Amino acid sequence: MKNVAIAGATGAVGQELLTLLAERNFPIKSLKLLASSRSAGKKIKFKGEDIVVQELRHDSFEGVDLVLSSAGGSISKEFMPSAVNSGAVVVDNTSYFRMNPDVPLVVPEINPEDIKKHKGIIANPNCSTIIMLLPLYPLYKAFGVERVHATTYQAASGAGAVAMEELRLESAALAEGKTFNRTIIPHQYAFNLFPHNSSYNDGSPEKSGSNAPNGYCEEEWKMVAETHKIFADDNLRVNASCVRVPVLRAHSEALNIRLSKKATVAEIYDVLRKAPGVEILEDPSKNRWPMPIDASGKDPVLVGRVRVDQSQDNAFDIWVVGDQIRKGAALNAIQIAELL
Amino acid sequence: MKNVAIAGATGAVGQELLTLLAERNFPIKSLKLLASSRSAGKKIKFKGEDIVVQELRHDSFEGVDLVLSSAGGSISKEFMPSAVNSGAVVVDNTSYFRMNPDVPLVVPEINPEDIKKHKGIIANPNCSTIIMLLPLYPLYKAFGVERVHATTYQAASGAGAVAMEELRLESAALAEGKTFNRTIIPHQYAFNLFPHNSSYNDGSPEKSGSNAPNGYCEEEWKMVAETHKIFADDNLRVNASCVRVPVLRAHSEALNIRLSKKATVAEIYDVLRKAPGVEILEDPSKNRWPMPIDASGKDPVLVGRVRVDQSQDNAFDIWVVGDQIRKGAALNAIQIAELL
Repeated sequence: MKNVAIAGATGAVGQELLTLLAERNFPIKSLKLLASSRSAGKKIKFKGEDIVVQELRHDSFEGVDLVLSSAGGSISKEFMPSAVNSGAVVVDNTSYFRMNPDVPLVVPEINPEDIKKHKGIIANPNCSTIIMLLPLYPLYKAFGVERVHATTYQAASGAGAVAMEELRLESAALAEGKTFNRTIIPHQYAFNLFPHNSSYNDGSPEKSGSNAPNGYCEEEWKMVAETHKIFADDNLRVNASCVRVPVLRAHSEALNIRLSKKATVAEIYDVLRKAPGVEILEDPSKNRWPMPIDASGKDPVLVGRVRVDQSQDNAFDIWVVGDQIRKGAALNAIQIAELL
Repeated sequence: MKNVAIAGATGAVGQELLTLLAERNFPIKSLKLLASSRSAGKKIKFKGEDIVVQELRHDSFEGVDLVLSSAGGSISKEFMPSAVNSGAVVVDNTSYFRMNPDVPLVVPEINPEDIKKHKGIIANPNCSTIIMLLPLYPLYKAFGVERVHATTYQAASGAGAVAMEELRLESAALAEGKTFNRTIIPHQYAFNLFPHNSSYNDGSPEKSGSNAPNGYCEEEWKMVAETHKIFADDNLRVNASCVRVPVLRAHSEALNIRLSKKATVAEIYDVLRKAPGVEILEDPSKNRWPMPIDASGKDPVLVGRVRVDQSQDNAFDIWVVGDQIRKGAALNAIQIAELL
């Protein structure tokens, strides 16, 4: 039984953390909900009981065993060291600590053993990375991977509950020929799409500290660098092109995978069928494959449409869809916490 | 001056053909609008004048010099031989004749010389193919292409004006929490997406006549086979994964291109800057790249975001967006007609 705190309790991931803690009967002794001063005083229901949201402060963590943090990178940077100093273990949902060599970056189906190495903080990977890696890892173990090229179809939820709401409202307005004033997403999002709006390295001096090489946006480089760290294999060739599409809460990814050992489509399906956290959803006779609405609110990453890439030797295309808020964020964090 | 007939005048492409004939001052002696008996009698304005739609019949083509056909493959199959027998030249927008060795398949910026080989019918390529090839061809000429891998983000317009309207209505309904009964698109389309709904070869005996290999849908295989025919190069390695996204009328494509000769990003931009039919639209310092709403209703195929693929030697990622109805269909057809 643990004393648990959630930092960022009022956000989309925070809300999903609460749902999952209840659903999975996580052994909770006490539950503290922390958020910005703006949200302090709000009441949130957990297992039928009202919990009052408290302001997140440096002294919020006294007596807390576990912090689930999803309030944004700058908040984690500022407050999570205090949580660790208070003796808590932090599972952090932001990108801030992910590439820190002292912080394990964990997908429980892939590298659960890394959890043991923690020094107070364990990082939860980027949503698109987790969703790609659940089917990729068992193929990597079974056949080796020469190269993976991912293009993504990312949902509004990655930009938070406010972005989901803005997409809904903008779609309603534009569908009826009305105008709409956006405040969250930088471009028209309804009936439109755009390369991912995370920080882009344009080669200018002020971007010289960017982790992403020239031409990549941060989201894309997360998929490369985090994969290397989680697989503990810096030589794996990974490339990604990330795009935001007007979908609410599940990311889709078209993966093109070149394997090291020869494999057949049937052998790949055999591996995926046994892969933890992965579910095959398809009806080829009806040209029916995983869709965002299939994955929304569900735990497994859905895969289907495994086919031979006719343009390369020993390469395959695979279609993957996963709930961005659940396995892409909150579920993965809770699974880590369950292993502590 | 030509006697022109449009078959499928009331559809999305038919309407765009009319717009473009007027915009480009195509030399028209007479204009006949043909459609199914359902649409016969409707009046459509052209240059301020009402034209009554007539039923498309085998004897519709007497005295006609040029037929622009976009009424669907089965209609072209049935009626276009009659048009040719009447002495007309047909520019056909459907897939029916495209791979027929007697029928040139033409993108005027790429293989205009093939038009001369026609025996009455010239085929207009698939929209996704045209949009991919406008930037690909000049790179192919300048550097050689080892392999191109395309993933698409395809708009509703590819399924016709009715699909665009259904997407709009479904989005309005779902955004307001109402239910909606679809009749055109097989899956929820608002706030959702799915691998392309063209005929899919699942390996079953009834699909044994499919041109697409096992696991590909027809849209994907069109991008492979039509590229081979237009470039007159069956050895070019092409792979495609096609996906329909809830966008109204422009297709986006993430192209991953491995070149034969060494090239730099700057050299690629130089080639694309001079490429006919291509326009570079980007502001890297603002992470701003082509979007479907930029391309909608515009002639050029918009490109941007050329960057080095860090996972392969001499490979690059390029982002391409083109109006599906214009350059993807009607504009390309009119450009062919202008060269006759």
